[in-house]
Amino acid sequence: MYREPDFSDPRLVAAPDCRFEPAPADTVLPDGFTSSTNHPTYVKVGGRWRMPERPRMDSHLVWDPASERLITKEFRLVKKGDLVATVSTEDGSQGILVWDRGFAAEVDETHVDEAFAFMATEVSREKPVNYDALFREFMANRGDQGCIVWVIGPALVHARGRVAMEWLIHNGFCHGLITGNAVGVHDVEAALYGTTLGMKADGSGAAGGHTTHMRAINEVKKAGSIKALVDQGRLTSGIMHALTVTDTPYVLGGSIRDDGPLPETIASALEAQDAMRELTVRTTMVVMVATALHSIAVGNMLPTFCTRPDGSIAEITTICVDQTEFVVNKLKDRGTHQAFGVVTNAQDFMRLVQLELADRIR
Amino acid sequence: MYREPDFSDPRLVAAPDCRFEPAPADTVLPDGFTSSTNHPTYVKVGGRWRMPERPRMDSHLVWDPASERLITKEFRLVKKGDLVATVSTEDGSQGILVWDRGFAAEVDETHVDEAFAFMATEVSREKPVNYDALFREFMANRGDQGCIVWVIGPALVHARGRVAMEWLIHNGFCHGLITGNAVGVHDVEAALYGTTLGMKADGSGAAGGHTTHMRAINEVKKAGSIKALVDQGRLTSGIMHALTVTDTPYVLGGSIRDDGPLPETIASALEAQDAMRELTVRTTMVVMVATALHSIAVGNMLPTFCTRPDGSIAEITTICVDQTEFVVNKLKDRGTHQAFGVVTNAQDFMRLVQLELADRIR
Amino acid sequence: MYREPDFSDPRLVAAPDCRFEPAPADTVLPDGFTSSTNHPTYVKVGGRWRMPERPRMDSHLVWDPASERLITKEFRLVKKGDLVATVSTEDGSQGILVWDRGFAAEVDETHVDEAFAFMATEVSREKPVNYDALFREFMANRGDQGCIVWVIGPALVHARGRVAMEWLIHNGFCHGLITGNAVGVHDVEAALYGTTLGMKADGSGAAGGHTTHMRAINEVKKAGSIKALVDQGRLTSGIMHALTVTDTPYVLGGSIRDDGPLPETIASALEAQDAMRELTVRTTMVVMVATALHSIAVGNMLPTFCTRPDGSIAEITTICVDQTEFVVNKLKDRGTHQAFGVVTNAQDFMRLVQLELADRIR
Amino acid sequence: MYREPDFSDPRLVAAPDCRFEPAPADTVLPDGFTSSTNHPTYVKVGGRWRMPERPRMDSHLVWDPASERLITKEFRLVKKGDLVATVSTEDGSQGILVWDRGFAAEVDETHVDEAFAFMATEVSREKPVNYDALFREFMANRGDQGCIVWVIGPALVHARGRVAMEWLIHNGFCHGLITGNAVGVHDVEAALYGTTLGMKADGSGAAGGHTTHMRAINEVKKAGSIKALVDQGRLTSGIMHALTVTDTPYVLGGSIRDDGPLPETIASALEAQDAMRELTVRTTMVVMVATALHSIAVGNMLPTFCTRPDGSIAEITTICVDQTEFVVNKLKDRGTHQAFGVVTNAQDFMRLVQLELADRIR
Repeated sequence: MYREPDFSDPRLVAAPDCRFEPAPADTVLPDGFTSSTNHPTYVKVGGRWRMPERPRMDSHLVWDPASERLITKEFRLVKKGDLVATVSTEDGSQGILVWDRGFAAEVDETHVDEAFAFMATEVSREKPVNYDALFREFMANRGDQGCIVWVIGPALVHARGRVAMEWLIHNGFCHGLITGNAVGVHDVEAALYGTTLGMKADGSGAAGGHTTHMRAINEVKKAGSIKALVDQGRLTSGIMHALTVTDTPYVLGGSIRDDGPLPETIASALEAQDAMRELTVRTTMVVMVATALHSIAVGNMLPTFCTRPDGSIAEITTICVDQTEFVVNKLKDRGTHQAFGVVTNAQDFMRLVQLELADRIR
Repeated sequence: MYREPDFSDPRLVAAPDCRFEPAPADTVLPDGFTSSTNHPTYVKVGGRWRMPERPRMDSHLVWDPASERLITKEFRLVKKGDLVATVSTEDGSQGILVWDRGFAAEVDETHVDEAFAFMATEVSREKPVNYDALFREFMANRGDQGCIVWVIGPALVHARGRVAMEWLIHNGFCHGLITGNAVGVHDVEAALYGTTLGMKADGSGAAGGHTTHMRAINEVKKAGSIKALVDQGRLTSGIMHALTVTDTPYVLGGSIRDDGPLPETIASALEAQDAMRELTVRTTMVVMVATALHSIAVGNMLPTFCTRPDGSIAEITTICVDQTEFVVNKLKDRGTHQAFGVVTNAQDFMRLVQLELADRIR
Repeated sequence: MYREPDFSDPRLVAAPDCRFEPAPADTVLPDGFTSSTNHPTYVKVGGRWRMPERPRMDSHLVWDPASERLITKEFRLVKKGDLVATVSTEDGSQGILVWDRGFAAEVDETHVDEAFAFMATEVSREKPVNYDALFREFMANRGDQGCIVWVIGPALVHARGRVAMEWLIHNGFCHGLITGNAVGVHDVEAALYGTTLGMKADGSGAAGGHTTHMRAINEVKKAGSIKALVDQGRLTSGIMHALTVTDTPYVLGGSIRDDGPLPETIASALEAQDAMRELTVRTTMVVMVATALHSIAVGNMLPTFCTRPDGSIAEITTICVDQTEFVVNKLKDRGTHQAFGVVTNAQDFMRLVQLELADRIR
Repeated sequence: MYREPDFSDPRLVAAPDCRFEPAPADTVLPDGFTSSTNHPTYVKVGGRWRMPERPRMDSHLVWDPASERLITKEFRLVKKGDLVATVSTEDGSQGILVWDRGFAAEVDETHVDEAFAFMATEVSREKPVNYDALFREFMANRGDQGCIVWVIGPALVHARGRVAMEWLIHNGFCHGLITGNAVGVHDVEAALYGTTLGMKADGSGAAGGHTTHMRAINEVKKAGSIKALVDQGRLTSGIMHALTVTDTPYVLGGSIRDDGPLPETIASALEAQDAMRELTVRTTMVVMVATALHSIAVGNMLPTFCTRPDGSIAEITTICVDQTEFVVNKLKDRGTHQAFGVVTNAQDFMRLVQLELADRIR
């Protein structure tokens, strides 16, 4: 249950309007600009506290007097003359309040604060994962009750999480997917040739294995697109197939290590970010599996909260699954502090989630 | 299928008997002593090639002319006057043949040898695990068909693998267990107080959590032993309970980080090794989960092969489950090269094994 | 010392010319196309064995009869009508020979092949690193004797390897640098504000720390470029400064997690790959530090060998420094099998290299 | 600077004496017993607040009215009739005060508390290590100014930290060493045969390498002890040699994975703990390198503070060096929350410490 700040607090009442300065040029900010965070934020404009649209961290608050809209804009999207907030404190005293205690009560319950305790590290393979709570979140965000965005790396495909991901897409547990060229390539490779990076499903190598992912790319190129390959009846299983036939939006963000790439891969990092953000602004739950690059990229553009259809504000459930604590902590260290870490193997996580959710929707 | 060396090979026919020298004192070896390996080994004595009893690595081959027995003895057990093999080559030419190609054919099948290939690293979280093959091994060694020895660390107890381990003991998949004081303590703690190291099952902390494991130890001490606590009806669930009521042998090997310790914990490292070895000499399958210390200790005393009841020689299936490749590779680097690595979280591994084996024995 | 294949071998003499087929469209390959590897490769054209230009893996061999050139082209650069090699064997029998034994002798020296040995894992934090050999390689490729390309991640900047990198650039040990936007940003942040990601050099946080990297970007944007900031006398230390004043080429490859980005960052993954490849085709030694993404990306486009000014063929020394074995093994698993792994902290590696090389050039 | 609790606080003045109950039997505690922590602790006895002798965690406070001594005793050392504290709160209200704010001011300085910040994870390979502060601590505890206890694992020996450790012992930076059998064995192996676990110093394997560590053990056994081998002029370098000739106390704690063991190795885990504790009760600085088992064992018996010769109370500097954050966090999760983590390779850490300390004492 979200708790608003107390706007009757005299300090907030007395606070001035937020100061805005025009951007001196396209993609250049005025001195003293404010950088946004992923917490709920209130900005005083015209004597009224309002929340900016499209919240995210590492961006900038732009006020448009004409439309009376307050928008969170990335650096690269700022235009000459845009009115950018230039306030250095976050306690409301200069017209910007970063509110990190809206969900505080819920956090407190799970926390015993003693001078001496074992197992105080937040993310550890040695801590039990509350899978029941996790499955409840999946159920609560299924179908039209939420918007679950998956962010996945290629290990999920290599290590046989592919079947589980396919099942989740078909059963209402995936409303959007963000990944890279490699997942698309190896998923198609698995569908066409039964290997990923030349490995068979039992982990052994196939003869000539180093060429099969290139052949997969070429088949897509010959067809013209993944969708065309599906329409021709040649791609009949896997993640890309499931996304295509269920019309689930996805982004393949390009990177410097891409082979091919596939026609669907967005080569420009900036255009890929735009496409990714269209998914993150409507998400209610995010599950990141086995990818540092995409998890941190998505974490950067992900608020800690969302506005539910009924207008209420709720936390975005953010799960980060990785083989090591390092990636989870790195994600947190890049500002996505709200992420709940599950330190395990992608394959086993996906298999467990499929088995246990199948049980719950039977 | 094990393939014996070809003893008609002229070089083996021509080889002299193995040379033995008396140990100059208790726990002192003659110069030039041979160190054993975990491979099948043949020693020429009286013109005949024979395999030593109780094979393991880092030990010594002792010939007793009186009883006509050839035994693999640990350094610490060698007595003054024991006749110790003193041969430096392993190719048979001096009477000792280390035979590492008895199971070679089986290895070759899974291996494509190309000049250039992806995914050539042996142990990687990114490789699919052939779980079907793993479950087949469990089924083939279940009940009186084999002897499955588990080697586990405390993470398995903290992270809720405890219920799965209990189930495995009750269902014929555990014929012996090797672990340390901590597993005993935290398992009893979980049974009596619902926490492990003060953590509740959902990962949150309990008030006063840093004392509960000490209380668990004290309850055992007051009763006199774990078995007494079971007999009094006070310990009614968990791993130690299951081992006790099914009469499954176990070893709690002492270490310098033990609290308490429990009465069942063997404080002497040397006596603990003796007890552990009684389990390893009859094992047909070993599963090591989430422990470097115990895995390497057991690996040291574990041959790569066993003699089946019908006298045939078979490989010992050796599975090592850990969160990182490092522990698996370290185990291999200490000589347990035959270990198959499963790089995952102990909790998820145990849960999956339970779910899928339950399906198979239903 | 490189050893050529024996072209008088009757099988090679009898081999037919390599078969080429035209690409059916831009960025579409003919069926049966060959994928290249990073080993020395010989292709029979017009009865003569020749090596393709610009060798790398995962690319395609294109023969241009007009210019009589044989070029290794990436998938995305193949044009309609390009004559692409379509041969499936690599043993020379169809006109393509992948030669992985040119440097075999050197490998053999360091390798004892016994049935049973400890420490057989190739990459391990527990193995001693032959730093003396490493320093000899640095000295042998210094200045105009070679071309050392560095591939680095932001941890190197955060963790105070920055001063060492600066020193290496100024002292002839860096002929090119490949990295991403973050290294540029945090290096400028450190120069202007004394923090990286808001951390001070002693690891503690600075007030308002989450905005300083954005301020660094804005200062570059206001100046117009990193070079302009240097020319204005405002950027006076660090990696980007050293690269600029020594005129050392560098590539900042864009990615989906970039803030800003800096004007020098190449947003298109494909254009970034082109720029990176111009560095990799002339390298004689590569040092990758603390980056999975860039290391694998560079590894993909890196042959195992180079042609020295005198026409001789030599191995490219490829060093991969990372905190975990995983990244080194992943790099190898993606085909860069020749990488020598140094499993350590980036900060300490850089500091040691600086201290010991400074000693050698004093 | 240590700050005592304010004993004039009315709640502390009003607090009753601590309650003590007799132990019902040897190594059995009275119900409701108190478990100690590693923080400074005050116990009210006879109306006076006093600190127990020999503080450590996971132990018990025993009051001896005859000698008027209050001692921290391990579970296993408690005798029938010992008067054991039985108090459940730690805020002083029942006569026991756990005081975790004695050094609080020093902690605060390094900490910026903001709602949103990057790099908030405590232990990370990505954070700069304040080596200057570390070297200052070494200098401040050198020679007769302090007592530096090292706790090391075998990776330090394999990976060439051996020369640095030897240097530190000879130069006043090591007043005690805690390790296991393996370090002793491989250090002697290196001195006698130039290998560790059969690896040569450049990381390559030696022929017959799997037997050399057994030969090292046998040479010690033949001599009778490590000291005898030194006295005979046969052991002339390395860690064990340096410890012996400088008369520096050490403990080789036995474990279930020991080969041999060496005569100096204490096979009983309980006796080894006793010997280790004699070192930890007088330490002023602890450096743990590359060992989980020994670090946690020592951490368990290590208070966070010591009493300086002048009677003042000071923090014990506790450094934990490991290749991964996991071991540092595990150590903290087992209660050694005060440990400062250095996430790096043992070899490089030791080499850097030697180079930079040599500079400072020149």
